[in-house]
Amino acid sequence: MLEIECKLRVPALEPVRERLLISHGTPLGTFAERDSYFNAPHRDFGTTDEALRIRYLDGRCILTYKGPKKKDYHFKAREEINVDIASGEEFEVLLTSLGFFKVAEVRKTRENYRFRGATISLDTVEGLGTFVEIEAPNRIDLKDPEKLIEDIARELGISGTPILTSYLELLLATR
Amino acid sequence: MLEIECKLRVPALEPVRERLLISHGTPLGTFAERDSYFNAPHRDFGTTDEALRIRYLDGRCILTYKGPKKKDYHFKAREEINVDIASGEEFEVLLTSLGFFKVAEVRKTRENYRFRGATISLDTVEGLGTFVEIEAPNRIDLKDPEKLIEDIARELGISGTPILTSYLELLLATR
Repeated sequence: MLEIECKLRVPALEPVRERLLISHGTPLGTFAERDSYFNAPHRDFGTTDEALRIRYLDGRCILTYKGPKKKDYHFKAREEINVDIASGEEFEVLLTSLGFFKVAEVRKTRENYRFRGATISLDTVEGLGTFVEIEAPNRIDLKDPEKLIEDIARELGISGTPILTSYLELLLATR
Repeated sequence: MLEIECKLRVPALEPVRERLLISHGTPLGTFAERDSYFNAPHRDFGTTDEALRIRYLDGRCILTYKGPKKKDYHFKAREEINVDIASGEEFEVLLTSLGFFKVAEVRKTRENYRFRGATISLDTVEGLGTFVEIEAPNRIDLKDPEKLIEDIARELGISGTPILTSYLELLLATR
């Protein structure tokens, strides 16, 4: 699966939420997410631009691998593999046995909306602030996902430069 | 979890099955198991005596890590971590992205019995033959799991030297 998304820092989430509701965005729920990020013993994911994450979300545990960001897109685009696992805690022990090590935990509240086929996330990230993520629909027939993302950002009144780094990178940069 | 087990090669499974049923062993079912074994990019599990396996079993996918065999036991004893995963195929892609690589697949039919608290497996392994595995119950109050295993083997009429290597190692040795 190829993920194309745009992350923007916003001073507050309320104006975006209002615009979404006025424009008939569909609320998909609010979730408390805790992400454990691991690095590898044989290559530094900070250098290779990969990520290995266990997400704890509403009783579920989802393992995610993200490949390096692809250069030929303006926004963030990368390979992503997701597998549900029965126990994140046990899997963390397994990863540690293999020589992987935890680098950080990212905790956020995420409020999701469906809007013009895209997924809009209003994020409050512990220690970082408030952000909006716009993820293009994963459809082969979608000609220009980047234009769709730009249109949506404008429609929701969000301006500013897209942030190409992850919450993990932002968090590590504050240390 | 510490796993203590004994594997023995047998010329045929029928005599063992008969003894188990006469001695009121409880049949736990017969399973077709397919195991994908992976090696790591940063250390050779053949040298470190570890194992990373995805087991496909009756619609389930179970990820297993086995640590090095412990030297202070006569039979096989090692740390084992098991985590159910939603898709073994997706997880194999993820492992490959991380630099791990598949070394072999082991296919077997396994017929399980509960007997005197232990788990007895009658195994027919593709390309290897027929084996019986006796796994001691994982109970803290069990004083001498090795003696229990020896008693059970005698009771079931199984003789021969315990095989300390895994099916994977046996299979790789035939190549």
